[in-house]
Amino acid sequence: MALLSELATQIVIPVCAAVGIAFSLVQWLVVSRVKLTSERQAPSSASKNGYSDHLIEEEEGINDQNVVVKCAEIQNAISEGATSFLFTEYQYVGIFMVAFAVLIFLFLGSVEGFSTKSQPCTYDTQEMCKPALATAIFSTVSFLLGGLTSILSGFLGMKIATYANARTTLEARKGVGKAFIVAFRSGAVMGFLLAANGLLFLFIAINLFKLYYGDDWEGLFEAITGYGLGGSSMALFGRVGGGIYTKAADVGADLVGKLERNIPEDDPRNPAVIADNVGDNVGDIAGMGSDLFGSYAESSCAALVVASISSFGINHDFTAMCYPLLISSMGIIVCLITTLFATDFFEIKAVKEIEPALKKQLIISTILMTVGIAIISWIALPSSFTIYNFGTQKVVKNWELFLCVGVGLWAGLIIGFVTEYYTSNAYSPVQDVADSCRTGAATNVIFGLALGYKSVIIPIFAIAVAIFVSFSFAAMYGIAVAALGMLSTIATGLAIDAYGPISDNAGGIAEMAGMSHRIRERTDALDAAGNTTAAIGKGFAIGSAALVSLALFGAFVSRASISTVDVLTPKVFIGLIVGAMLPYWFSAMTMKSVGSAALKMVEEVRRQFNTIPGLMEGLAKPDYATCVKISTDASLKEMIPPGALVMLTPLIVGTFFGVETLSGVLAGSLVSGVQIAISASNTGGAWDNAKKYIEAGASEHAKSLGPKGSDPHKAAVIGDTIGDPLKDTSGPSLNILIKLMAVESLVFAPFFATHGGLLFKIF
Amino acid sequence: MALLSELATQIVIPVCAAVGIAFSLVQWLVVSRVKLTSERQAPSSASKNGYSDHLIEEEEGINDQNVVVKCAEIQNAISEGATSFLFTEYQYVGIFMVAFAVLIFLFLGSVEGFSTKSQPCTYDTQEMCKPALATAIFSTVSFLLGGLTSILSGFLGMKIATYANARTTLEARKGVGKAFIVAFRSGAVMGFLLAANGLLFLFIAINLFKLYYGDDWEGLFEAITGYGLGGSSMALFGRVGGGIYTKAADVGADLVGKLERNIPEDDPRNPAVIADNVGDNVGDIAGMGSDLFGSYAESSCAALVVASISSFGINHDFTAMCYPLLISSMGIIVCLITTLFATDFFEIKAVKEIEPALKKQLIISTILMTVGIAIISWIALPSSFTIYNFGTQKVVKNWELFLCVGVGLWAGLIIGFVTEYYTSNAYSPVQDVADSCRTGAATNVIFGLALGYKSVIIPIFAIAVAIFVSFSFAAMYGIAVAALGMLSTIATGLAIDAYGPISDNAGGIAEMAGMSHRIRERTDALDAAGNTTAAIGKGFAIGSAALVSLALFGAFVSRASISTVDVLTPKVFIGLIVGAMLPYWFSAMTMKSVGSAALKMVEEVRRQFNTIPGLMEGLAKPDYATCVKISTDASLKEMIPPGALVMLTPLIVGTFFGVETLSGVLAGSLVSGVQIAISASNTGGAWDNAKKYIEAGASEHAKSLGPKGSDPHKAAVIGDTIGDPLKDTSGPSLNILIKLMAVESLVFAPFFATHGGLLFKIF
Repeated sequence: MALLSELATQIVIPVCAAVGIAFSLVQWLVVSRVKLTSERQAPSSASKNGYSDHLIEEEEGINDQNVVVKCAEIQNAISEGATSFLFTEYQYVGIFMVAFAVLIFLFLGSVEGFSTKSQPCTYDTQEMCKPALATAIFSTVSFLLGGLTSILSGFLGMKIATYANARTTLEARKGVGKAFIVAFRSGAVMGFLLAANGLLFLFIAINLFKLYYGDDWEGLFEAITGYGLGGSSMALFGRVGGGIYTKAADVGADLVGKLERNIPEDDPRNPAVIADNVGDNVGDIAGMGSDLFGSYAESSCAALVVASISSFGINHDFTAMCYPLLISSMGIIVCLITTLFATDFFEIKAVKEIEPALKKQLIISTILMTVGIAIISWIALPSSFTIYNFGTQKVVKNWELFLCVGVGLWAGLIIGFVTEYYTSNAYSPVQDVADSCRTGAATNVIFGLALGYKSVIIPIFAIAVAIFVSFSFAAMYGIAVAALGMLSTIATGLAIDAYGPISDNAGGIAEMAGMSHRIRERTDALDAAGNTTAAIGKGFAIGSAALVSLALFGAFVSRASISTVDVLTPKVFIGLIVGAMLPYWFSAMTMKSVGSAALKMVEEVRRQFNTIPGLMEGLAKPDYATCVKISTDASLKEMIPPGALVMLTPLIVGTFFGVETLSGVLAGSLVSGVQIAISASNTGGAWDNAKKYIEAGASEHAKSLGPKGSDPHKAAVIGDTIGDPLKDTSGPSLNILIKLMAVESLVFAPFFATHGGLLFKIF
Repeated sequence: MALLSELATQIVIPVCAAVGIAFSLVQWLVVSRVKLTSERQAPSSASKNGYSDHLIEEEEGINDQNVVVKCAEIQNAISEGATSFLFTEYQYVGIFMVAFAVLIFLFLGSVEGFSTKSQPCTYDTQEMCKPALATAIFSTVSFLLGGLTSILSGFLGMKIATYANARTTLEARKGVGKAFIVAFRSGAVMGFLLAANGLLFLFIAINLFKLYYGDDWEGLFEAITGYGLGGSSMALFGRVGGGIYTKAADVGADLVGKLERNIPEDDPRNPAVIADNVGDNVGDIAGMGSDLFGSYAESSCAALVVASISSFGINHDFTAMCYPLLISSMGIIVCLITTLFATDFFEIKAVKEIEPALKKQLIISTILMTVGIAIISWIALPSSFTIYNFGTQKVVKNWELFLCVGVGLWAGLIIGFVTEYYTSNAYSPVQDVADSCRTGAATNVIFGLALGYKSVIIPIFAIAVAIFVSFSFAAMYGIAVAALGMLSTIATGLAIDAYGPISDNAGGIAEMAGMSHRIRERTDALDAAGNTTAAIGKGFAIGSAALVSLALFGAFVSRASISTVDVLTPKVFIGLIVGAMLPYWFSAMTMKSVGSAALKMVEEVRRQFNTIPGLMEGLAKPDYATCVKISTDASLKEMIPPGALVMLTPLIVGTFFGVETLSGVLAGSLVSGVQIAISASNTGGAWDNAKKYIEAGASEHAKSLGPKGSDPHKAAVIGDTIGDPLKDTSGPSLNILIKLMAVESLVFAPFFATHGGLLFKIF
């Protein structure tokens, strides 16, 4: 048995979660010390920070107090817009969740005809397990719980982000280092809240369900998979709906503002400018958060469901059973220490220190976590045990499991660094793309697409190695914990990731508040680093999504009682080729959705410019709220077709074509989708930074392409606009496609195995 | 036994091939009746054609004779350029073929240690088969034979195309119908020569090999697979090398000519203009021809190798064994009749009749061929027989095989029509893309990409249905004959396809010869229809490539003695995900290759404009030959990296990772590559025709976007330029990737099965 006792496990997990929550609250408190009210109301706070009012006034001139008031106003508008989007989204989510909960209950309940009698277990037919009806009820409950946890995490993350953006702007007056810390701390609030909440709720759910299930762990953890489905369903709304929102507002604002009215980006006269800033929060903060939370919940559930039918579950070894949760607990502690390196141990003084500081976060957390995994593997696992492997039990050693988690963790780091190489303008790939703007937009697009395709190579090899190692050592359990390994530093990853949109917003607020060029330059520098970290975050998200989907796929196959998925059978092969097509269908839908939603925004912005007198002259205020509402409604309406494609495909394929074809579909969409997702987000990131490279003009080469407004710059802007929906909507949405189809198949597996394949049964 | 006797089969096949060759020669003769020499030297020929010299002079003015001389000059330059490219290519091909032939001999010879003793057969271990060394020798011979047949067909096709282009221009003076017939007849020469040659050489090879192998059909048809590999290897040079050539010349000519010097397309002052026209011939004619020939040879070989270990081969039923060849024979006759509908039964009188006439060709040939397949299936097959199905023998009826071939044939038609819908500017998808040019190049690109993604859906379903039906009825044999069904009307398909570049060239020649606007309008109309048919041809090519690859994949698995390809094993899954990545890697390479080769062209064109005095004024002639040479050398050099990726991947994966991983790689690249290939070629086709839609201004909507030079038109030109390498290089090259890797794996399967997987053996 493991060194760590069951009691200790029962204590350690909630304590770590509590530490995470406490830490995030402390960060929030520190951020809140930056006052957004007029300085006169708090005369002493400034000197407490070590900066005198005098210094600030010197930089910003005499209208300092006005600036603060303006910033507070803008922040308010953004926060209200984001909240209003989320609450409207929750109405749709509510209807969807209830409807889908009913569906889950009916489908799973019908497996044994809603019988309340105990039945022989699926895997250990000697034992009696709880009735299928119980699994139906508890799956439904955990589904709702997963959805609620995701909503809560996304909502709180969005709150802190919209709380921090104006504060970052104000701190930028004091220097780039101060602004960086505010943005980064706020990101950390989101990261730690999400990681700790996810862990805590899952832990509580397991313990509560145990009260009913007792020793029937097979049923217990089968029911727990609903938690992953719930989290992932919310991610559909967050990622796809949020993704459409953010780019519809962005593209809509640019098309009228920049093209027709010739006013700069983030100009307060543009009615869509608040919607654009809201978009950063709902898309990149809440959307990204729900995506990663979904991956986290799903990989935990996939690991747990396999463990329950391995020796951990058969022997009722609670500590070993909780291995995935202990990894996540250790992750919270490791990330806490890592965060201190950015916020307390060192201080950023110059712009060029930002990117290295963020990269250091990734490296430190990975190294510390490697040690952490070793410790957990040593104390929580027996030295030898067995893992369920498609019908047989495979003997596994504890150090092998350490390698599984470790390979996932390091594959994540490699993906991160490769993404950085291909999307940061410090390296030759983006510089080559920028250089291709010399011969026009067409060559820019061709080079950008080629860059995206090329950037897929190393990440895929990294994922392949991670899969091979973890699969060989511990079958599907290995894959699931490898995914957890990649996600174990999720708190740090999210902190880095959320920092980007917060800085982006801060820049927008500086522009709208009419602050000086100098402040804008500082926020731009923060934002440029944020662009790269956003790409890294997307790399992590898709990498973990690939592993998670495979783990879920494996769990599905086990539960659907098929022992092989042979490509050389017609049922599987047609699934494979159609599955590989789905990401294209889905991308076509999301790209079209952005277009349609942006068009609605364009019409409203045009209408306001035409009907509100004095708007162009800056004498009248635009109606921001209507634009926010239009973006909200359009994006939620436009997400229905792609959402339906994701949700209905497994149901239709499973019901009519059966589990073999569904297996093919899952494998096909996984291996095809991961490529498009990586290439789309890297192509978009590269175009964005190629444009920034020309604009910044930091080298001789960059200067020869600029300045703003030159022909190469115009070509770069076209690339950037094309990249927007690719990198922020269609690319990241594919994570959801591959994960959600897999987890949905897993939850409905008992139904498909019993009643599926109608079409083949008829003919 | 079959109704058709062995003797009749031995007579019917060569006769049909001979009829095909004779028919193509007749077409050539008819085309040659259009005189390219000065009319004075052949005063009577014009009146023989029913047109008086007077009429022609009225249309073109007094300089008629000069025009003819000029046309002849230009045609000569293009023909010389194309020939010089092909001969340079053949030098590379020669080295490659010899080296690869040695490799095949060594790898296959080493399977049994170069022993000359007979050995037990692989499938029927009771019987003795010829030694592995014999298979090595004969595989090498058939490899060389396949390569030579492909070279011959491509060369003759290119010859007739460069023979016909100026004649099409001259006939355009008499009317669009006359010009159409010349272009179409020339296409038919290529189509029939290729189909008939392919059939004849294969037939002769089988009969010659039989002299040695006698009753050892297993060994005989194993050796014949080399024919497919040979054909496909040549296609690598034709498709990839030719694809890079054509776009490097095109993009290079446009970048300097249109952008820097502001001279129109096809202007004779542009030094790269001949290279551009040569490109159409080497890329779209020779490249497309070798691609389809490769598919044809491979699907025949795949069917034959499976048949040899089915009841056909076991019972030595020669007629049934030749079923694939009989289908192709019937195809030649059907296409011959179909061609008469376009050239003799009806006459084209107006521009708008061209597209329907070409579409009618597809429909007529498909309907006639359906009857033809039924006849062949009835007379050539026993009513019931068995087909090898991964270790077992499956009982199949003759009508089931009819359905297999038929479903492939009709899937091809569906793919053709869907492609037409998405790429012709007569329908809303392209019109929507054109409309999106209103808001700039960025929206044009986004909509174009989305269109390409969407256009994948129905073709994939069509392919999936074809696979499911043929796979279910007759396993891998079914897939192979379904592919043959799709390719059975190859003569008509190629005629339609080759017609496009010939018309394109004709337009170029009209421009360069300084002919009137009216002639140019006629050739433009021919060319616009050719754009759509080119896209249809690409659809066929990729559809058949998908089926062929699957058939080859199945044959490989059988020969490598693995019975299942289980996705849920680490070795297969990593193959699958890496395989799905390969098309991206390959596309990145080919796109980059076009860029680099185009850049070299740009430098040369700039140099000529700068150093040749009087060039811009039209007083001096540019040095066309140097541009042709640069394009030739650059394209052949640039095709080495992508070519190496294709050729080395199966060898490396098979040798070091073994047959399971290689199976995964083949399946992954197949299901992923087919999607990118379809979307890339349709996106490119749509952009091209969106531009043409705006330029033609045929409707109110189109007029509102134009005229040439308007902002929407400029945006459309950017899309068109981006689409060029997608639709003519990287997209179609993917056919080669998926087919060549599969056939290479098949040929080397005995080696991999015996000595492969070194890496796993070591650890």
